[in-house]
Amino acid sequence: MTDPAASALLTDLYELTMLQAYYDRGMNGAAVFEFFSRKLPRERNFLMAAGLEQVLDYLCGLRITSEELAFLDSTGRFSAGFLMSLEDLRFTGRVVAMPEGTLFFADEPILRVIAPLREAQLVESRIVNLLHFQTVVASKAARCALVAPGKLLVDFGLRRAHGAEAGLLSARASYIAGFSGSATVLAGMRFGVPVFGTMAHSFIQAHASELQAFENFARSHPANATLLIDTYDTVEAATKVVELAARLAREGIAVRGVRIDSGDLGGYARQVRRVLDEGGMSQITIFASSGLDEYALRDLAAAPIDGFGVGTRMNTSADAPYLDCAYKLVEYEGRPKRKRSEGKATWPGRKQIYRRVDAGGRIAGDVLTVEGDRQQGAPLLRAVMTDGSRIAESPSTEAVRAHARAQLASLPARLASLERAQPLVPAVSEALRALAAEADRDAGR
Amino acid sequence: MTDPAASALLTDLYELTMLQAYYDRGMNGAAVFEFFSRKLPRERNFLMAAGLEQVLDYLCGLRITSEELAFLDSTGRFSAGFLMSLEDLRFTGRVVAMPEGTLFFADEPILRVIAPLREAQLVESRIVNLLHFQTVVASKAARCALVAPGKLLVDFGLRRAHGAEAGLLSARASYIAGFSGSATVLAGMRFGVPVFGTMAHSFIQAHASELQAFENFARSHPANATLLIDTYDTVEAATKVVELAARLAREGIAVRGVRIDSGDLGGYARQVRRVLDEGGMSQITIFASSGLDEYALRDLAAAPIDGFGVGTRMNTSADAPYLDCAYKLVEYEGRPKRKRSEGKATWPGRKQIYRRVDAGGRIAGDVLTVEGDRQQGAPLLRAVMTDGSRIAESPSTEAVRAHARAQLASLPARLASLERAQPLVPAVSEALRALAAEADRDAGR
Repeated sequence: MTDPAASALLTDLYELTMLQAYYDRGMNGAAVFEFFSRKLPRERNFLMAAGLEQVLDYLCGLRITSEELAFLDSTGRFSAGFLMSLEDLRFTGRVVAMPEGTLFFADEPILRVIAPLREAQLVESRIVNLLHFQTVVASKAARCALVAPGKLLVDFGLRRAHGAEAGLLSARASYIAGFSGSATVLAGMRFGVPVFGTMAHSFIQAHASELQAFENFARSHPANATLLIDTYDTVEAATKVVELAARLAREGIAVRGVRIDSGDLGGYARQVRRVLDEGGMSQITIFASSGLDEYALRDLAAAPIDGFGVGTRMNTSADAPYLDCAYKLVEYEGRPKRKRSEGKATWPGRKQIYRRVDAGGRIAGDVLTVEGDRQQGAPLLRAVMTDGSRIAESPSTEAVRAHARAQLASLPARLASLERAQPLVPAVSEALRALAAEADRDAGR
Repeated sequence: MTDPAASALLTDLYELTMLQAYYDRGMNGAAVFEFFSRKLPRERNFLMAAGLEQVLDYLCGLRITSEELAFLDSTGRFSAGFLMSLEDLRFTGRVVAMPEGTLFFADEPILRVIAPLREAQLVESRIVNLLHFQTVVASKAARCALVAPGKLLVDFGLRRAHGAEAGLLSARASYIAGFSGSATVLAGMRFGVPVFGTMAHSFIQAHASELQAFENFARSHPANATLLIDTYDTVEAATKVVELAARLAREGIAVRGVRIDSGDLGGYARQVRRVLDEGGMSQITIFASSGLDEYALRDLAAAPIDGFGVGTRMNTSADAPYLDCAYKLVEYEGRPKRKRSEGKATWPGRKQIYRRVDAGGRIAGDVLTVEGDRQQGAPLLRAVMTDGSRIAESPSTEAVRAHARAQLASLPARLASLERAQPLVPAVSEALRALAAEADRDAGR
């Protein structure tokens, strides 16, 4: 089975049925689409843009294979001429976007595609699929990072992430947003995300005794062993670790940490810390996991825990697993467009966002306006692709992570809180309101 | 970028750190792991097993590449001898599982792996990743199918599914569970899932008038056009459809349906149905989409809507985006094992589930017991792989779907309801209780 991500058919059928009609009428004028979130989830005071890098990869690699064309032909829905026109399909357009790691709010586009109509339409499904998911995860992970400053945060969620790509890209998105790394090995290989790993309960159980399991693991990882101590009796296991660590130290083997994966994590951490400290093992760190999310991290802030494995709830963004987001036509052949469907009305035209910060560097407010209309503050969208090619080399994952950190530092306290706050709503410029009125006058009946 | 799903490194680092220790001690005895859900989400009265087919594909294809080995080497965590031992890594074990589409409940294993310890351990992360996700989606989609009998249900969720594989496999899982098909083209090509597609609002907006857009689309899809009517004024658009359909009928072009994607779907459907019927277009169907899930489908049961596009909330299983599930060591070198961590205690040994049905064919109760202990009813687990090879050809997607339909028909009314019901809890046999006591006596200290 070839990679679904590599297939041009990882798209909704309606993209292709529309393209057939455009082909029949010779319609392929310059189209402009923008991706944005109409409304933030109740549980989010900000979103963090992520996924652009994979979108650019996708656009650069967009091709359709002969097997895919044969499948389309077999559906009986498409004309031979149209299918032939797809043979040399390439993305030749322009992309304007927010750098990954940038914070954004309702109605603020994070990506614009300007391309011949058929290209710009076909790529909708996968662009949304990529931007939506990584943005969902980065936004959730950023909340974890905000409430656990100075702690080691490791993505543990591959197993319950929604499939292979979700596992891989949530490791990337959470690292960008401030996690220290991931347990997912492939994320280390692909993106340079630092990888972390300990042991499972099965490792303890496959041995005749817990102590023997600890010793075997420590001998195999003499500089780097974290021992899982909650399989039987957590506190008793900590006493075994003290004895073992002292004995192995004489051989130059260092036990680095212990992990607690069940029960009252804060309570156990305090007991285990005491056992370790009283045993002269204050350098052994305590790592905790099990059903954690930003709320649990906040509640554990005072516990003597050095690091956390954060999995399922972060990778699935369990409290807000999706965004109300869309990739909308905002201009066609030079005319502004907007949708006025009930509850789904949007702003037309090519937009720019200007962000003002206060003297302390905190976000003071955003203005949503039309491209070219200069407002106070710094513009957030910039060109990243032209004629289907990247304009510049993409920033490294580390650079994106540093940008994200600076962005989070710019959050006003109310928006950095886990509590629901008065939302930041961008002001809408006069120029944009005038364009909306023009689009409405235009709107065909 | 190669397919993450094809990489042996789509795993947690701890699988490999454990393997290093096993390698160092020469530990590779026969291990038995089982995958099960400890507890159903509050919002689910049953789960539907799915993902086995992809697990078997994964196990058959498990290989490690030289690039992957080089990456592991670069981490400095692994010995040269161990890395060499991975070079000819293959899965050589046995798998016992429930057929996909089978319903199951808390503590009931849906898959067992029997293999040399290192193989059985390494595959944990991806097995959980595959079974968890498709089971989550099939279970959610089955609830939609239960409340909308006789309706066309189409998966619309690729764009907000969590990545490429989630988009593709949620199309498969929802089709198995009773959906009519998917908008995801690749799911048609890969799995034979029927594909459906209409048009986007952008199609309407790219035209000078809504009527012209409708006509162009219908001419390009003369037997199969579904027209999106909510871009401007839904009811007015329905009147345009009537006029257009009458005019095009003379040319042999049939408008098949209309789609409503915003507002009060039930209210609009009634108004649109009236307009269509009064215009002599009773054969034109009404299709609805926009934020649907099983609760919305139930509330729309009386509306004159023929089919539904169900997306985001189904594909992300938004009300229960993950399961409390695990892949646990239950036996090693012939000795039963179980974890006793707080709140996470499990049943040891190789298990079988027997299901009794009443005279009406409804599930009367399950018994969880040890393999080999015969109980009343039919056993649910069967061997599907031996020595790393499939025992028989996998059932077709259609056959799995038929099995799932029969399974859903066997649900007692209380469990088929969307409301939270008294859960079905499997009875635990004497033989299994005795084995648990043995495992506890054994448990190393």
